[in-house]
Amino acid sequence: MKYCNLCGSTVELRQPPDDNRNRYICTACNEIHYDNPKLIVGALPIWQDKVLLCKRAIEPRHGLWTLPAGFMENGETTSEGAARETLEEANARIKIIGLYTMYNLAHINQVHLLFRSELLDLDFSPGVESLEVRLFEEKDIPWDSLAFRPVKLTLQHYFTDRSGGNFPFRTSDLLPLQQPAT
Amino acid sequence: MKYCNLCGSTVELRQPPDDNRNRYICTACNEIHYDNPKLIVGALPIWQDKVLLCKRAIEPRHGLWTLPAGFMENGETTSEGAARETLEEANARIKIIGLYTMYNLAHINQVHLLFRSELLDLDFSPGVESLEVRLFEEKDIPWDSLAFRPVKLTLQHYFTDRSGGNFPFRTSDLLPLQQPAT
Repeated sequence: MKYCNLCGSTVELRQPPDDNRNRYICTACNEIHYDNPKLIVGALPIWQDKVLLCKRAIEPRHGLWTLPAGFMENGETTSEGAARETLEEANARIKIIGLYTMYNLAHINQVHLLFRSELLDLDFSPGVESLEVRLFEEKDIPWDSLAFRPVKLTLQHYFTDRSGGNFPFRTSDLLPLQQPAT
Repeated sequence: MKYCNLCGSTVELRQPPDDNRNRYICTACNEIHYDNPKLIVGALPIWQDKVLLCKRAIEPRHGLWTLPAGFMENGETTSEGAARETLEEANARIKIIGLYTMYNLAHINQVHLLFRSELLDLDFSPGVESLEVRLFEEKDIPWDSLAFRPVKLTLQHYFTDRSGGNFPFRTSDLLPLQQPAT
């Protein structure tokens, strides 16, 4: 950030009074510009013994499989956001059952919330951000071609929990992936 | 928003390609500026049969009682944020037990996450944003002087759940408060 989005003057990075972090502060109007973590909201859409996944048509992770999820928007609730993303990416309608997993990715300033949900019908198809949308039985999940760790972990928990018939809330903090030592 | 914070040129409100919402877009460098909901993270700090509350020294709701909570910062996890807010507002150290409540306040673009936690010792005192910090037994909770609905609801759930010894995750969507008809 170089300029104040309210008055167009330059900003400087310094600590406001009664704060303990540097913020971008306008040199003219003194507006303090905060930058905060973003919420990613998504769904685990279930149909009988199958789970709906989307093959990504966009970067990052083009061509890999994901649960429908994306940045939460202003003016919606977390579960509304999860249902909206499912409609946008898979043209699919769901009924939210409840919050199932939360993953903190502090290194990229994100919190991911995934909701267990029921697919309402079999009328689905790829949205503009998807190449393909499919239902998978557990044995067919493309474990080596999943796009994101929260997706993989949520699917692993789901199949484990399904065998016991109980779906407790699951959460963990994900650290940056190790870079290969090549 | 009137100016691009990257290049200082004016922005205009329009819908980017493959999007379905208006965004502020720079008329010179074409940067798309997104605005997303914010997370408020906080704690329900417990000591034996008592709960720690802070009397607010700042607006909004100056002089009313709250659980320690505030805007989540970049570079931290949700539970780290809850512990940081507890340290800042009450100079108190906690051990996080787990996520307890989530409230969606879509009309103000906020999601509140409150963590059940154990106060580690009795060494606490008001931070700069608090007038007073106190432990309350259930019978002494100042129900008519609580600052925010998520605080009131979390306390209500806690005392109900404590009597049964079970603390399930609780969530609800809070609509705007009705304005008095005066």
